[in-house]
Amino acid sequence: MSTHKTGRTTDGLDALLRPKSVAVVGVSSSGRGLGATTVRTIQRFGFDGPLVAINPRATEVAGVPCFPTLREVPHHVDLALLFTGGDRIRESVLDAAAAGVGAIVIFASGFAEGGADGAAREREIIELARAHGIRVLGPNCQGVVSLSSGLAATFSNALWTDEIGQPSPVAYIGQSGAIGGAVFDLGRERGCVPGLWISTGNQADLSVVELAERALDDDGLRVLMLYLESVPHADDWIPLCRRATELGKHIVLLRSGTTEVGRSAVASHTGSMVGQDEAFKLASAASGVVVVSDINELVDAAMSLVRGATPSGSRIGVVTTSGGAGGLCADMSVELGLEMATLAPETGAALVPVLSDFAQPHNPVDVTADLVSGRPHDLGEVCRLVAEDPAVDHVLVVVSAVVGKIAERIAKGIVEARGRSQKAFSVVYLSSHDRTLQVRRIFAEGGIPVFDSIGAALRATARLVSAGPVRPDSSSGHASSATSDGPVYRVLTEAEGSPVLAAAGITVPGGTLTTSRAEAESAAAELGDDLVVKLQSPQILHKTEMGLVVVGAAAAEVGALYDEMTARARQHAPHAVVEGVLVQRRVRSGVEVLIDVQVQDKGYPPVLTVGLGGTAVELYADVETGLLPVDQDTALQMLRRLRGWPLLDGFRGGQVHDVDAAAAAIVATSEVATALGPELVEFEINPLIVHEKGHGATAVDFVAHLDPTAAAPIERPVGRVSEPARAEVAR
Amino acid sequence: MSTHKTGRTTDGLDALLRPKSVAVVGVSSSGRGLGATTVRTIQRFGFDGPLVAINPRATEVAGVPCFPTLREVPHHVDLALLFTGGDRIRESVLDAAAAGVGAIVIFASGFAEGGADGAAREREIIELARAHGIRVLGPNCQGVVSLSSGLAATFSNALWTDEIGQPSPVAYIGQSGAIGGAVFDLGRERGCVPGLWISTGNQADLSVVELAERALDDDGLRVLMLYLESVPHADDWIPLCRRATELGKHIVLLRSGTTEVGRSAVASHTGSMVGQDEAFKLASAASGVVVVSDINELVDAAMSLVRGATPSGSRIGVVTTSGGAGGLCADMSVELGLEMATLAPETGAALVPVLSDFAQPHNPVDVTADLVSGRPHDLGEVCRLVAEDPAVDHVLVVVSAVVGKIAERIAKGIVEARGRSQKAFSVVYLSSHDRTLQVRRIFAEGGIPVFDSIGAALRATARLVSAGPVRPDSSSGHASSATSDGPVYRVLTEAEGSPVLAAAGITVPGGTLTTSRAEAESAAAELGDDLVVKLQSPQILHKTEMGLVVVGAAAAEVGALYDEMTARARQHAPHAVVEGVLVQRRVRSGVEVLIDVQVQDKGYPPVLTVGLGGTAVELYADVETGLLPVDQDTALQMLRRLRGWPLLDGFRGGQVHDVDAAAAAIVATSEVATALGPELVEFEINPLIVHEKGHGATAVDFVAHLDPTAAAPIERPVGRVSEPARAEVAR
Repeated sequence: MSTHKTGRTTDGLDALLRPKSVAVVGVSSSGRGLGATTVRTIQRFGFDGPLVAINPRATEVAGVPCFPTLREVPHHVDLALLFTGGDRIRESVLDAAAAGVGAIVIFASGFAEGGADGAAREREIIELARAHGIRVLGPNCQGVVSLSSGLAATFSNALWTDEIGQPSPVAYIGQSGAIGGAVFDLGRERGCVPGLWISTGNQADLSVVELAERALDDDGLRVLMLYLESVPHADDWIPLCRRATELGKHIVLLRSGTTEVGRSAVASHTGSMVGQDEAFKLASAASGVVVVSDINELVDAAMSLVRGATPSGSRIGVVTTSGGAGGLCADMSVELGLEMATLAPETGAALVPVLSDFAQPHNPVDVTADLVSGRPHDLGEVCRLVAEDPAVDHVLVVVSAVVGKIAERIAKGIVEARGRSQKAFSVVYLSSHDRTLQVRRIFAEGGIPVFDSIGAALRATARLVSAGPVRPDSSSGHASSATSDGPVYRVLTEAEGSPVLAAAGITVPGGTLTTSRAEAESAAAELGDDLVVKLQSPQILHKTEMGLVVVGAAAAEVGALYDEMTARARQHAPHAVVEGVLVQRRVRSGVEVLIDVQVQDKGYPPVLTVGLGGTAVELYADVETGLLPVDQDTALQMLRRLRGWPLLDGFRGGQVHDVDAAAAAIVATSEVATALGPELVEFEINPLIVHEKGHGATAVDFVAHLDPTAAAPIERPVGRVSEPARAEVAR
Repeated sequence: MSTHKTGRTTDGLDALLRPKSVAVVGVSSSGRGLGATTVRTIQRFGFDGPLVAINPRATEVAGVPCFPTLREVPHHVDLALLFTGGDRIRESVLDAAAAGVGAIVIFASGFAEGGADGAAREREIIELARAHGIRVLGPNCQGVVSLSSGLAATFSNALWTDEIGQPSPVAYIGQSGAIGGAVFDLGRERGCVPGLWISTGNQADLSVVELAERALDDDGLRVLMLYLESVPHADDWIPLCRRATELGKHIVLLRSGTTEVGRSAVASHTGSMVGQDEAFKLASAASGVVVVSDINELVDAAMSLVRGATPSGSRIGVVTTSGGAGGLCADMSVELGLEMATLAPETGAALVPVLSDFAQPHNPVDVTADLVSGRPHDLGEVCRLVAEDPAVDHVLVVVSAVVGKIAERIAKGIVEARGRSQKAFSVVYLSSHDRTLQVRRIFAEGGIPVFDSIGAALRATARLVSAGPVRPDSSSGHASSATSDGPVYRVLTEAEGSPVLAAAGITVPGGTLTTSRAEAESAAAELGDDLVVKLQSPQILHKTEMGLVVVGAAAAEVGALYDEMTARARQHAPHAVVEGVLVQRRVRSGVEVLIDVQVQDKGYPPVLTVGLGGTAVELYADVETGLLPVDQDTALQMLRRLRGWPLLDGFRGGQVHDVDAAAAAIVATSEVATALGPELVEFEINPLIVHEKGHGATAVDFVAHLDPTAAAPIERPVGRVSEPARAEVAR
């Protein structure tokens, strides 16, 4: 949105992505170095606007006219590529400002990635550029390639080639230029050249997300491959994902880097199981983002998506030149949650005349060596018949070591079959590369993804199947949708804990908080036998381990228990504030469920976790997570997905429990957490005892970590929660 | 071991693997077809003995002399390759017998793989060949390649090349010729050409295992890649694995195909979790076999093993041209159970002058784009320094999209560093193949495995780390070592059940089997309150689900319970034999452990399974398995590996239990199962209640499935167990 002296492009982003003129600053007169390399790459890709170099000691470098500084360039410059380093960058920025440049790319390293000094220098440069309305890509980046603009402003070795073929409607936008280079080169070989390619480096100004937003506007782009080293803010990320969905475009995401530490002050058992990326992942998946975990997978997924080769379901039809490989496909499909399609009898009948004498018309269809050597093109016909079977969602063709003319005929047959079908196709080609470059080119031009292993192909398919089709109406909640029905639950003290739950519709056990032996004895006498006795202290988190909870006590024991517990607490935690001993009637038995809500960084909605069985949660990590808010249906689905679900549902002919009440308690917890708003750090009911069907569920213990200093719902410095307040149910 | 009329080779296997003369039977005079293809392949690889073709209508085909039948060949023929099909094969075998041929290869399909008729024809042919002392490879196979003998007797397309380079001391032996072809071609490209290559097809006579045994005798072979579609008999497989270990050679195994159904008559809960391959897998792993699950992984593992590039531990040192890729390496290492090495301060200090200005000398070491473009060869120096660090077991080098001269210099630097180090090296090369054939050749010739993705490289390393070094003294037991200390436990009836366990040193609860209400009441009166009451019937397996077990009954209730239980059993299982109602004193509480022993097919030792916690076993499949016999140390290790181990060991400050007693009960169960010998089908204690430390463990229930018809310990037709006898503890 900058204003230029002699503006030719509409804004800084336009100057970066569709520049009408380019200057390369810092090109050595020897013609060596990254600047000169970049000049040659720009020329090779045929940029058709004015291109100049900046070098005070030359008039021409690498075949382009040279000027001492940007100020001397006689025409307007949209985009300046800075190969200068250190202190000279500041000078270049001032020159760029004077020349009315719209955007600059800073390639040099040694900024924020190198420590505090570099970070300070980086901030200074960016502020300077911003003050002059210049957008900045980098520093520590590898530049930008926009093939529709004929611009290849990068030194990446991946671009050192003339034969890149037709660009695909695919973009790579990521911090890493090296990963970007790999993606470009691997994509090029497979016929999936990114039409737009940007390395954002330290992204001091322009980020992957901002550039991705702009890229979505380009009608010519259908798939965005994004590489992120940190989680973007929800307010940027979620709208981006939604926008992509609305436009029917796909995002494939590769995320690297360890999770941020932050919020270590609050370390609950559940916290260690739910990473800080959880809401980011859930929100991404809910928006149809395909999440991959390796570089080649980024290309594989994009390739399948751009060709519309997304499987409509999980049923695989395998056509193979090797029976053994067919067996491996079947084994691995099962492991990956895919299934082998059962071919219709008509398909079998149609296959028989095409196949060799001893080949069986069953899935996996082994065409046998006879067909391969005698009638290689017929393999395509087999593929066509399998693809036509309504039981097949995805055709996987395994071609073992077949080379030369036979392999070319096979490839053409498969490409033909693919062309006549709406189904997704992929090929596993188990031959060397050096003898099959031409064959692979046929597949690439035919738009068929080729994999080097059965495992890689099936994992790619499984990933696309689980991402599912683009869902225009994503129901994932968002923090900003958290309702603020007033400050009813704002301050959650110990005394208020139980009423808060009760007000939300969650059943809590009765009981009395006693502060002397006499009070405890008298409370017990009133309540009768079979009691629960618990010490209450905001500082003692794990009461059970310290023997500060007794279940099933007789009324006559309670006086002695009062003394024992208070003494033990004094001994083990001398500085803890003991608020008293809670005496409750024992709650009828049932299955224990944990419900936990944790806030997430960067504006993502809190994550609600449910787990089943006191020990199973910790030992087996048997938990399910969802984004707030959670409704009754979602709550039931989460419970059903637990491995321990049979315990609730009548394990081994046992009791069927009140799952509706459990789900209602989950929904109520979601509502309480939402109402708590920005003060919430963590809120956990553990356990909720789910009684037999028709008898409800009781929250027998809960903990809330609140941050009373929190004010605004967004950009709150989580991780610096001072001393978390803690409330324990009492009443 | 055949005797020939005019034997030139020592036996049939020698005739197959080192023939002095070869005849190809069924070569079309047109020069087309698989026979003629094979003749050309044999010629191309320079077989130097006499080579003739058999065709009644020609005197020369494909450049070799032709005869009407094998009988007319004027010299001795060691090996006959039959490309005839159908009925003509019988005739060819008779001709071969008459000509004194030592071995034949039958390439044709249409035998056992095609159904019952084909199987009968196959048997007939094999019997005929055996009667004449001829060994047979196939049918339905792709032949044999023995490069040391200059023999390439196959039509496989993978061999249609002259440039195969130097053979590696690696063999492929597998049923599938197509998978074999892929292995040959992929290996060739990576500088790992199998010196011996055999496709056994239907293996009607010669099997993968017999050929592998012979291959081990060849001093020139160091790694066997085996592909198996079914589990070989333990008496063949285990000695093979042991022999390989003794010789310091490696076996890499790819296994395909679903598990055999068999033994479905006995379907216990545990049975469904322990597959029929379990003992095969355990025995293989115990012998240092590297088990892979995909075709490319077979080549990858062999390549690492043959170069001695097996990591000495799990600590990875990463050198990368991409910081982002380094982050992905760190993420994935953790997931795969590997760790990122912490470099010594001296290594860091030595790296600083080699690295570029802004590069950090930490693992993963990102060399940055400056070094790559300016001093590519120095990447090797960085690798050398990282490899020298004692904290590094394996050096993983990630090279992103770098091509041309720069890439060649990088590759040479890495190969040099590898040559100066004893450490394992592998490379992830994230560039296209078409632009990097020459660079890949440098890696191949330098003996460095190159992977196309970070995930593939790290999975390969993890696999080698977990297989560990070859262990010469494998302690895995074997069924034939089962001691027969006499028939003490041979017949295990209901009445004898408890004494059998007690005699083995396992504590069992007291109790009385009562057969009338009056008897039950009188037994209860004697035992006091807090009783366990169980109905006893060999036909009712899941008593709990049917309400036929009551725990904690008062003595006064027992009479009514007797009537209720017997009535309920009559109602739900009218045909079950009710032996009575068992009245026991309730066993003191503790942690429930399951101990189960199941026999396995094909001579493998039985598998012992332990699980912890009644529901955890089924819901979370929290079990560990080991081969019989299990000693005290192994039993403790198995318990410790359970995810639920903390429950035994004092979870959340709880009770520490008598794990030594639990381990002793596991050992005793192993001994009982061993002594039961061939009659054993399944033996399960469920649960063993493990009391608090010092108070032992009690087996409160057990089930034994015996097969009284079983006689010999080996080749017993499991799966056809008639009506399994069942014994329930009683006293």
